[in-house]
Amino acid sequence: MDLNADLGEGFGRWTLGDDEALLDIVTSANVACGFHAGDSSTMHRICVAAVQRGVAIGAQVGYRDLAGFGRRRIDYDLGELCDDILYQIGALEAFCRVAGGQVDYIKPHGALYNTAAVDEGQASAVVAAVRAYDPALPVLCQPGSSLARLAAVAGLTVVGEGFADRGYQGDGTLVPRSAAGAIVHDPELVVARAVRMAVSHQVETSDGELVPCAVTSICLHGDTPGAVELAARVRAGLTEAGRQVAPFVTWPAG
Amino acid sequence: MDLNADLGEGFGRWTLGDDEALLDIVTSANVACGFHAGDSSTMHRICVAAVQRGVAIGAQVGYRDLAGFGRRRIDYDLGELCDDILYQIGALEAFCRVAGGQVDYIKPHGALYNTAAVDEGQASAVVAAVRAYDPALPVLCQPGSSLARLAAVAGLTVVGEGFADRGYQGDGTLVPRSAAGAIVHDPELVVARAVRMAVSHQVETSDGELVPCAVTSICLHGDTPGAVELAARVRAGLTEAGRQVAPFVTWPAG
Amino acid sequence: MDLNADLGEGFGRWTLGDDEALLDIVTSANVACGFHAGDSSTMHRICVAAVQRGVAIGAQVGYRDLAGFGRRRIDYDLGELCDDILYQIGALEAFCRVAGGQVDYIKPHGALYNTAAVDEGQASAVVAAVRAYDPALPVLCQPGSSLARLAAVAGLTVVGEGFADRGYQGDGTLVPRSAAGAIVHDPELVVARAVRMAVSHQVETSDGELVPCAVTSICLHGDTPGAVELAARVRAGLTEAGRQVAPFVTWPAG
Amino acid sequence: MDLNADLGEGFGRWTLGDDEALLDIVTSANVACGFHAGDSSTMHRICVAAVQRGVAIGAQVGYRDLAGFGRRRIDYDLGELCDDILYQIGALEAFCRVAGGQVDYIKPHGALYNTAAVDEGQASAVVAAVRAYDPALPVLCQPGSSLARLAAVAGLTVVGEGFADRGYQGDGTLVPRSAAGAIVHDPELVVARAVRMAVSHQVETSDGELVPCAVTSICLHGDTPGAVELAARVRAGLTEAGRQVAPFVTWPAG
Repeated sequence: MDLNADLGEGFGRWTLGDDEALLDIVTSANVACGFHAGDSSTMHRICVAAVQRGVAIGAQVGYRDLAGFGRRRIDYDLGELCDDILYQIGALEAFCRVAGGQVDYIKPHGALYNTAAVDEGQASAVVAAVRAYDPALPVLCQPGSSLARLAAVAGLTVVGEGFADRGYQGDGTLVPRSAAGAIVHDPELVVARAVRMAVSHQVETSDGELVPCAVTSICLHGDTPGAVELAARVRAGLTEAGRQVAPFVTWPAG
Repeated sequence: MDLNADLGEGFGRWTLGDDEALLDIVTSANVACGFHAGDSSTMHRICVAAVQRGVAIGAQVGYRDLAGFGRRRIDYDLGELCDDILYQIGALEAFCRVAGGQVDYIKPHGALYNTAAVDEGQASAVVAAVRAYDPALPVLCQPGSSLARLAAVAGLTVVGEGFADRGYQGDGTLVPRSAAGAIVHDPELVVARAVRMAVSHQVETSDGELVPCAVTSICLHGDTPGAVELAARVRAGLTEAGRQVAPFVTWPAG
Repeated sequence: MDLNADLGEGFGRWTLGDDEALLDIVTSANVACGFHAGDSSTMHRICVAAVQRGVAIGAQVGYRDLAGFGRRRIDYDLGELCDDILYQIGALEAFCRVAGGQVDYIKPHGALYNTAAVDEGQASAVVAAVRAYDPALPVLCQPGSSLARLAAVAGLTVVGEGFADRGYQGDGTLVPRSAAGAIVHDPELVVARAVRMAVSHQVETSDGELVPCAVTSICLHGDTPGAVELAARVRAGLTEAGRQVAPFVTWPAG
Repeated sequence: MDLNADLGEGFGRWTLGDDEALLDIVTSANVACGFHAGDSSTMHRICVAAVQRGVAIGAQVGYRDLAGFGRRRIDYDLGELCDDILYQIGALEAFCRVAGGQVDYIKPHGALYNTAAVDEGQASAVVAAVRAYDPALPVLCQPGSSLARLAAVAGLTVVGEGFADRGYQGDGTLVPRSAAGAIVHDPELVVARAVRMAVSHQVETSDGELVPCAVTSICLHGDTPGAVELAARVRAGLTEAGRQVAPFVTWPAG
C-alpha cells in the first residue's frame, strides 16, 4: 500500500502542516507547485528531503488562486488550464532534478481535484497536460471519477486513492462534506478502515454495507490537530496487518 | 552573430511587443517565465513557434514582481532568489519539452540583470541556480559584469551581448539611461554599430573613441514604435556585411 | 443619456485601451480597482483626470484574478466575495478622495457581471457589499438581471445600461457571444441603435422586432481597433438627436 | 501608554499569530492591508473586533510582496510607492467604515518601515501619501528616523514607538538583529524595560547606560511562541506601575 499526503502547502512566511513529520510517514508526497500554495524554497527543501527518504514526489497541481488556496472552482479556458498545469509540473521538475529525483506522478488539488472528478472538460485538460509532458506519468485520483476514466482512455496510468477518514456511499463515492457521516473522527476506526482497504479492498458505507474499494494509495492529512499522529497510526496499522508500505511508483509492474 | 530579444512579455489579457514578427528576426528568444511577465499559454505558444523556426530558447528569469515588471531591485534572500530562478527555468523547460526543444540558455531580466551586473551576491545566486540546474547551460549577459565574471569562475559558459542602440563609455560599460547619449536613435547608425560589433568587435564611445566590444549576441527590442523594423534592418545589415546570423547555441565550439 | 466605459484596465507595464481619449467621450468611467486589472498609479491618474473633466467615477469591481482578467467565473465563498468588493471600493475611494471626488457608483466586471446577472448568490454578495458600504451608491447593471432585481429589493438605486453594439433577443436579453448576431459591426447601425435606446427606449431584436429597452446609460468600449472612434460617433449621434449627454449621478431626481 | 501590535497578518488559508488574544491586550492594532499580508475577510473581521473593543485601527502598509511578506527592500518608483500606500489605506478604510470606525493612524511594515527609517526618498513617499489622504492622520514610527523627521517637517502628527524586547544603542537606535544583544529574551526584563519606558522615558543600552526613550506606544508581538503571554505581562506590568493603558488616538491633546 502507498500512503500519500499534501506537503509544502505553506507560502513564504506562512506555514501549514508539519512537513517534516509527514515525510517520515508517507511514501508519496504531493508537493504544492506555487499556484495555490508552495513557494520556490519550500518546494526545493521538500524535494531534497523526499529524495533523501525515498519518498516519491508528485506534482500537486492546482488553480492559480493563492487567496483561495485553490479551493474555489474556476471556469478556466481549458487550453489555459492545461498550460497552467504544464507550468507547475515543470517548476517542480526543476527542484526534483537538483535534488536527484524526478516528478513521479501528478495529483490535482482542491477544487481542480473535485471538478476534474465530475467535469469532463477540466478532466481532459489534466489528461492533455500529462500526455504532452510525459505519457508515462501516473495520475493519482479517485476511482470512478471522470479524470480516472478519461486518463485511462488516453492510455495514462491511473492510480486510485482512498480516504480512510471519509464516509463512503453505496456507489463508492464519498459522502458529501455537508452531509452527516462525511468525516470519520474515531482514530481506531480510521485505522481499521485503512487496513480493510489494504487487505480486502473494501470499505464500509454509512449504511453498514461493504463495497469494493480498490485503491493503491491512501490519502493522509497533516494540517489539522492530531493529523500527523493519526497518519502515523494508519501506517503502523497497515504494517501490523502485514501490508508492505512503499511508494506505488516503485512497485513491480502487474 | 546571434540576435536576441525579449519575447512573451505579455500577461493574460495584456500583450507587449510583436512576438510573431520578432521570431522571424532573432536567432535567440529570451522568453519571460511568469514572475515579472509571461503567462503559461504565451510561454507555450512562443516555445512552439521558436522550435518551428529554429530559434534558440532562453529563460528570461526575473524577480517575482508582476506589478513592477521586474524592473525594481528587490533585496532578495539569496537562497530564495536562486530558488525563484530554478522555478522559472523549470516552468519554461516544460513548454520547451512539449514543443520538442529545451531551455538553451538563461538571461536575467530587468533589475535582476542590472543588479547581477554589479552585485556579487545576486550574481552568485544566478550562478548557483544555473550550476544546480545544468552547468552546461550558457548565461547571456554583459561582458565585464559581475555575473559574467562569477559565471566564468564557476565554469559556466558566458555569452556576451552588445547593444547597438545604446551609448558606450570608454571602459566598455553603457552610458547610464539618465545621461545624454544613452540611446542611439538614428536607425542607420544603429545598424552601422551592430555591423562594427560583428565585424571588428568594436564599438564607438560617446567620445568618438573605438573600444573593444567582443560580443556574441546583439540584443534587439520589440516593444517600442519602430523597434521591429529596426531589428529587421540590423539583421539585414549584418547579412549584407557578410556575417552569418545564427543561434549561438548552434555554433561550432571554439 | 449617460455613456459609460471601462477605464484604467492596464496593469503596471501593460496598457489597454486609450483611457485619455475615452475620458473625453464618456460621462461615467468604470475604473478597474486592482483585482482583475488596474494598478494604484493608473487608478490615481484616472481619478484625477475624471474629476477634472466632470466624469463620474464608478468602481469596476471584479474577481481576484489578474491572469484571467476577471473573465473566468470563480465559485467564491459569498462572504469573501462581499469582502473583496468592499476592499476594491475602498481602494478606489482613496484615489477619488485625493482627486477631490468620490466613488459615484459600482459596476461589476467581466465574469462577476455575467454571474451576478443570473446567480442570486453572487448577486446578493454584490448587494451586501454596496449596502454595507453606502446604501446610496447606485449599481450599474443590466435591466432584468438577478443583480438588478435583488439590488432593487434591497432598496439600492439600480441604473440600467444598454449595449448599442450587441444583439438583443425578444426577452430583452443579449444574444450570447457564441451565437450569430451577437455583435453589431456596422458603426452607423450602432449609432442608430444608441439613438433609438435614448429617444424611444427601444431596441431592435435579431428578429427585427422592437422591444422595450429602458436604459439610463449606454456602455461603450475602448479596447478594440476603431472602438474609440465609434464611441465618439455614438456620443455625437446622441447629441445630434437632441439628447443631452451627462453623468447619471448628476441628473435631477425623478 | 499605548500598546500596538501587528494583526491580521494571515492570508487566505494561512494564519499567523493569535489575533483574538492580542485584541484583548493591545490598544492599537496595526492591520495588514493586503499587499504583504492580510486578505479582505481577515481585514473585515479584525476591524469589527477592534471597534467592538475600542481598539484603535492603524493601516499597516507595506510593499506589494506577498511572497516576501514585505520584508525585502524594493526600489520602488516613489510615486508608485505613494500610490500603493494610498490604495492600502483606502482598502482598510472600507472595512473600518462598515465596522463603524475609521483608519486612526498608519504604520509602515517590514522593509518599508526599515527603509523609511533611513531613506529620505521612501520616507517622503509615506509622508506624501498621508498628506494627500488626510493630514490629520498620525504616523506611528521610530523616534529619530527619517520618517519621523520628514513627517514632522510636513506637519503630520508623529507618534514614537519603543521596543521593550529589543536592545538599544547609545544613540537611541536599535541593536541590529545580526548583533549580540539584539533581542531581550527574559520576560521579566522585557516587562521592566517597558515600565521604564513608560515611567521614566528611558531605556538601558547594551552598555548599561540609561538613555532617553520618549515613546508613546510600545510595540508588542504575537507571532512567536510565548509572545501573547509576554504581551499580556507587559500590559499587566504597566498597569501595576500605575500607567494607564489606552489608544494614543484617544489621549487628550497636549
